Amino acid sequence: MNVNELNTSKTGLLFFDMLNVYYHGASEETKKKMKPVVDNAVRLLNAARKSGIPIFYAMANHRKDGNSRSITVTDTDMRLRPWPDGVCNPSIHGATEGSWEQKVIAEIEPKAEDYLIPKYRWSTFHQTYFDLALRSRGIDTIILSGGAVDVGVASTTYAARDLDYNVIIVRDACSNSHDDSMAAFMDTVFPRMARVRTTDQVLGMFRKQI
Amino acid sequence: MNVNELNTSKTGLLFFDMLNVYYHGASEETKKKMKPVVDNAVRLLNAARKSGIPIFYAMANHRKDGNSRSITVTDTDMRLRPWPDGVCNPSIHGATEGSWEQKVIAEIEPKAEDYLIPKYRWSTFHQTYFDLALRSRGIDTIILSGGAVDVGVASTTYAARDLDYNVIIVRDACSNSHDDSMAAFMDTVFPRMARVRTTDQVLGMFRKQI
Amino acid sequence: MNVNELNTSKTGLLFFDMLNVYYHGASEETKKKMKPVVDNAVRLLNAARKSGIPIFYAMANHRKDGNSRSITVTDTDMRLRPWPDGVCNPSIHGATEGSWEQKVIAEIEPKAEDYLIPKYRWSTFHQTYFDLALRSRGIDTIILSGGAVDVGVASTTYAARDLDYNVIIVRDACSNSHDDSMAAFMDTVFPRMARVRTTDQVLGMFRKQI
Amino acid sequence: MNVNELNTSKTGLLFFDMLNVYYHGASEETKKKMKPVVDNAVRLLNAARKSGIPIFYAMANHRKDGNSRSITVTDTDMRLRPWPDGVCNPSIHGATEGSWEQKVIAEIEPKAEDYLIPKYRWSTFHQTYFDLALRSRGIDTIILSGGAVDVGVASTTYAARDLDYNVIIVRDACSNSHDDSMAAFMDTVFPRMARVRTTDQVLGMFRKQI
Repeated sequence: MNVNELNTSKTGLLFFDMLNVYYHGASEETKKKMKPVVDNAVRLLNAARKSGIPIFYAMANHRKDGNSRSITVTDTDMRLRPWPDGVCNPSIHGATEGSWEQKVIAEIEPKAEDYLIPKYRWSTFHQTYFDLALRSRGIDTIILSGGAVDVGVASTTYAARDLDYNVIIVRDACSNSHDDSMAAFMDTVFPRMARVRTTDQVLGMFRKQI
Repeated sequence: MNVNELNTSKTGLLFFDMLNVYYHGASEETKKKMKPVVDNAVRLLNAARKSGIPIFYAMANHRKDGNSRSITVTDTDMRLRPWPDGVCNPSIHGATEGSWEQKVIAEIEPKAEDYLIPKYRWSTFHQTYFDLALRSRGIDTIILSGGAVDVGVASTTYAARDLDYNVIIVRDACSNSHDDSMAAFMDTVFPRMARVRTTDQVLGMFRKQI
Repeated sequence: MNVNELNTSKTGLLFFDMLNVYYHGASEETKKKMKPVVDNAVRLLNAARKSGIPIFYAMANHRKDGNSRSITVTDTDMRLRPWPDGVCNPSIHGATEGSWEQKVIAEIEPKAEDYLIPKYRWSTFHQTYFDLALRSRGIDTIILSGGAVDVGVASTTYAARDLDYNVIIVRDACSNSHDDSMAAFMDTVFPRMARVRTTDQVLGMFRKQI
Repeated sequence: MNVNELNTSKTGLLFFDMLNVYYHGASEETKKKMKPVVDNAVRLLNAARKSGIPIFYAMANHRKDGNSRSITVTDTDMRLRPWPDGVCNPSIHGATEGSWEQKVIAEIEPKAEDYLIPKYRWSTFHQTYFDLALRSRGIDTIILSGGAVDVGVASTTYAARDLDYNVIIVRDACSNSHDDSMAAFMDTVFPRMARVRTTDQVLGMFRKQI
């Protein structure tokens, strides 16, 4: 297959964790950094709706009581800070089910016919119905926008690759807290397991179809 | 839990793709670069056997006819070279079932009681019996040595994390072709989802148990 | 392990498809037949709440547009009627997301702390978060009430068995449309892969704990 | 889709646990009962090879040390005998890896290009590469022969159904120890989730293709 081709009738658009907690509820600095990413997500959404491409929203979803959360031992917390006295003690995640924090940002608001994929772990595929939703519509290619790149986007892409899905990572519609891992994924890791493109390039692929 | 503790009775040691094709069958330059990694793998193996820790070998396993291989569209081949004329055309993998290339290197030769995990995709968990083998022995912690870090080691670690396994990445017993992604994983990505340690540190953790 | 023992701290109670569509929305004949099953489900629920056993509700969950539904070829429809002219043509399922039909019956109404498991296929484990919810609470035993026995209860029990969960089928808290398969499962199939008990027997097992 | 049609280019033939331990190593009575089932399996195999249909062999595969085996609590052993004094104590399975018992019967001997699927649980899909092997060849329909019907054949069929595979159960090429569950599956359970046909009928479907 040619790497510049796209069959939009077999393509889905996935927004990963584009939730209030990570944007409208974040610091001014984060918001400023995220703004162009959100703008590109909006452009992708509008173009996808016009092309009849199904839209999926992966959403972190956690219980208020903290049950069901991941409890593995890590060297640091999610901000790369080592645990005080070496005692691994993850806090309960902010995106609890039904809260404002857990809602998709209004800029790319889901419609009734879109797919909401609540999830309890990092990968969009992990114990969710994402795979069956894709397969029963004949989708074999996933366009991916969101963040964090080195957490859920990477986890989803590794899983998608092993499940034989083609993935297109939209570089300027993705966000990450760490520049070194963002660059390593986009330049060195993803090109061997997926395609890495800009929003402009993806919109160009859509237009070729029409 | 304290990040310096290890319960060896709940721990398994996983060697990822330590196969002839990637070492004895590789270029002199690669062999030279891999040598200290293999030496550390041997040290881990000996210490694990002494401590009664079960040993698992993840092994790429492919059909000669190329069926069952991954067929997703990527920007480049596995050496980061763009496809000629943009035509994605992956070759058949060298580690075909039963070949010399696919065998575990003699330095860390498996014994009859060890676990061989043939696999067709990157993650050691993907459509293999690794998870049930671990759970039915009560193992919740995986010590990981091998390569490539940004391919199968990363893929396995993301999957392990979502399945609630604790992972200890043995930095100097792992290999990778690309320095930027190696550094990003070890410094920025893995510490938030696992523990990153040297061979010496892991051997120290084993000794504390005795 | 002794087959009459139960560790309630490692036990969960699962109600399978106890939804309006299958009871309050069903024919008078079905309602009459189901009434004692519902009564026993209520007794199980009350006893489980008293013992601090977590409650899970598996709920058929379907899209109004029929996407995501199963589309396999079968000899008959769900009532065992061959397809007219041999053309397999499954209708869209009544339990669409958010509808009255899809809600759990009021008799065993879920509380905020209970687990709702929406599902698109028969098995409660298939592409749902049921497994991770169980494991992260240390649950290894599932008490199962609901119907249909030869559809979702069987499917869930086969999957649970392969995932190493102990299952206790509560015979008089389960329903089925067909007497031959109900008897075969309870007498011949389930005893080799699970335990089959009455509501009274299960309540007795709970009491032994206190 | 019409229930009498079959696209052989999207079809695979699966033999489930047609192993020495269950036939040549069994009692004379079992052998006699199994003989026509094996004869039909041979007819299916020959016809499938002629039609270019890929062949898969699901094979129970167990460790000599008994690790990795299922350890769930059941009311009875596999012969429906209650455990002495209620102590559930499953023996180690006879089909240990590499043994004569675990080999496929010579009557339907695998060729190099066929697919061997070793498995540790009942379902052919459970933590095996069966699903990826099917999908990467574009197979959506599984013809199933083997036994036991109420153990692995049923378990595989429930899983296949949830994964959106069409299944054709070849009634007279399947075996079971219990007549009540055999009849219930073939008459009442399988027709709603699959197609149930005789060997003659399946061979007729193959011929229509040519």
